[in-house]
Amino acid sequence: MPVKTICWANNSIKIIDQRKLPGELKYIYCRDLKTIWDAIKTLAVRGAPALGVAAAFGVLLGVSKSKERNTSKFIKEIESVCDYIGTSRPTAVNLFNALNDIRKLVRENKDKSVIELKKLIRKCAFQIYEHDRKVCREMGKFGAKFIDNKKNYMTVCNAGSLATVDFGTALGVFYTAQKNKREFKVYSCETRPLLQGARLTAWELKKSKIDVTLICDNMAASLMRKIKISGIFTGADRIASNGDTANKIGTYNLAVLAKHHKIPFYVVAPFSTFDLNIDNGKQIPIEERKSDEITQIKGINIAPKGIKVYNPAFDVTDHNLITAIITERGVISPVNKQNIKKIFSCYA
Amino acid sequence: MPVKTICWANNSIKIIDQRKLPGELKYIYCRDLKTIWDAIKTLAVRGAPALGVAAAFGVLLGVSKSKERNTSKFIKEIESVCDYIGTSRPTAVNLFNALNDIRKLVRENKDKSVIELKKLIRKCAFQIYEHDRKVCREMGKFGAKFIDNKKNYMTVCNAGSLATVDFGTALGVFYTAQKNKREFKVYSCETRPLLQGARLTAWELKKSKIDVTLICDNMAASLMRKIKISGIFTGADRIASNGDTANKIGTYNLAVLAKHHKIPFYVVAPFSTFDLNIDNGKQIPIEERKSDEITQIKGINIAPKGIKVYNPAFDVTDHNLITAIITERGVISPVNKQNIKKIFSCYA
Repeated sequence: MPVKTICWANNSIKIIDQRKLPGELKYIYCRDLKTIWDAIKTLAVRGAPALGVAAAFGVLLGVSKSKERNTSKFIKEIESVCDYIGTSRPTAVNLFNALNDIRKLVRENKDKSVIELKKLIRKCAFQIYEHDRKVCREMGKFGAKFIDNKKNYMTVCNAGSLATVDFGTALGVFYTAQKNKREFKVYSCETRPLLQGARLTAWELKKSKIDVTLICDNMAASLMRKIKISGIFTGADRIASNGDTANKIGTYNLAVLAKHHKIPFYVVAPFSTFDLNIDNGKQIPIEERKSDEITQIKGINIAPKGIKVYNPAFDVTDHNLITAIITERGVISPVNKQNIKKIFSCYA
Repeated sequence: MPVKTICWANNSIKIIDQRKLPGELKYIYCRDLKTIWDAIKTLAVRGAPALGVAAAFGVLLGVSKSKERNTSKFIKEIESVCDYIGTSRPTAVNLFNALNDIRKLVRENKDKSVIELKKLIRKCAFQIYEHDRKVCREMGKFGAKFIDNKKNYMTVCNAGSLATVDFGTALGVFYTAQKNKREFKVYSCETRPLLQGARLTAWELKKSKIDVTLICDNMAASLMRKIKISGIFTGADRIASNGDTANKIGTYNLAVLAKHHKIPFYVVAPFSTFDLNIDNGKQIPIEERKSDEITQIKGINIAPKGIKVYNPAFDVTDHNLITAIITERGVISPVNKQNIKKIFSCYA
């Protein structure tokens, strides 16, 4: 069974401290707003869906102990809590989505009493939490059909329990297949520069007793020729209308290698990952990150001082390199504008 | 100008201590046999051609101060010095080739005086040294024709000064183009797990004032789409009769990506790298190395304890992914059995 990354426990937010992984499994119990703010800021909790839940529970934590009885003053308090949480990770879209859901709820219920508002916020936070659990499980069901007994699969970065409430997107496929009594092997690419594959994916799959082997990113082609890889499963950060997919740097590398070796390449991502306002991957801006992510590991220099680096956080995989996109509503294949439009119009 | 990795200076072997790179440029002066043995053993000096020269200079160092006057006793001394040096890196082919050259020379001159034998060994050691310099420069000349002004190139691992006497194979192409006043950029793949691209290639190109940028191995495809890469230059560990090439892990990855992005892929390697006794790359055994090369960096754990790893030292690039092999005698292209046979028969 996958690990539980975030949950509400005895009026606190219980999270795995991911800064301690893979060395140590330690939980943090956030009993006040400052503690969850710090946890988000310092990456104790990370991953788009998990951050949405952390923000929602954060607001719940921040306002539930309020002594305020006047609704309009209480609403100001809620607003200020939302503002404060927003400062912890200003670039995390899911975090702001969750905060906006709560703000909207409050705007629509500004005539309610403080007690009623507290109940509504609690309900909303738990809905965000339950929604992630449900969506991941649905994707897992659709994806597990592509997992066969005694076969080998690959993944990159961490699209697992540790990025969501407890199940993951790409790794949710493996967890579902495991529940269905499938036996299979997973190869985890270490995912330079920040090594999420080595630190997080290898750790959570091992912890969940899935047969996992770690490789360096540049060993993928060698492995693909040595043994038969039956599929590659990755998450996604943003998907354009035509299916071009931005994901952790190295994903596009892997997709090109998969094509050369005739290996199916699957993206596992919920509807919320699609950005239908953009036509194709060229319109997705790619953040370049600071050089010491590459030149240092845990503070130790591994490259010459002052060396220039190229450090993009993401790359974009062309839709024609993707065999299928697995969503909570079904599988999109072949991946193209028409098929994406079709599945969205069915669930509009 | 490239750095001088190994040379004979004032009756000592002067080498760059590569264990200190990229932090510090420090030379070791080996004035006795034990010091050069330690330097080889502990990887202060590395790279196939450099090890051949280190072994030859090592024998010269070991026997030149001998007080022995009796030839047959002196020959026994030479033999024992060769045996001793052979224990420093038992898998280094070039090291044994150099030792065998000296042993053969001694066998063929066993009637000579001690003084004459000392002269012959000195001459032989310097021939091995000069041969590397000459071969690298010849490859550089042939390869530099593929370097154009204001273009971008890539390389992987370290096939440079630091692996040879002072010029390198793949990097020798860049040094020659620089001498020819070409201006160009080089992207160095960091080359996990041992980071030779980050530690050594980035360092020596920067030191030689070639415009170098470091990337992680999994950023190659992203870079290939972002800018036009006009060629990739790599070294080789062993080349089969049909041109299939074993080289540092990640080379085959890069060759597949190059094909997808229509980028010429060049292998730069001397005749001595070819093994015409084997038909193709499938017959090249691939050493798998220990797991802590991947799970630790400088002694620090970066992966879960006890995680399984796949850690091949090399991969094999199919000859049909290689645009040309650049040797000291000319360029082989297209790369196939016939063309390799042809160039070898011309210089038999």
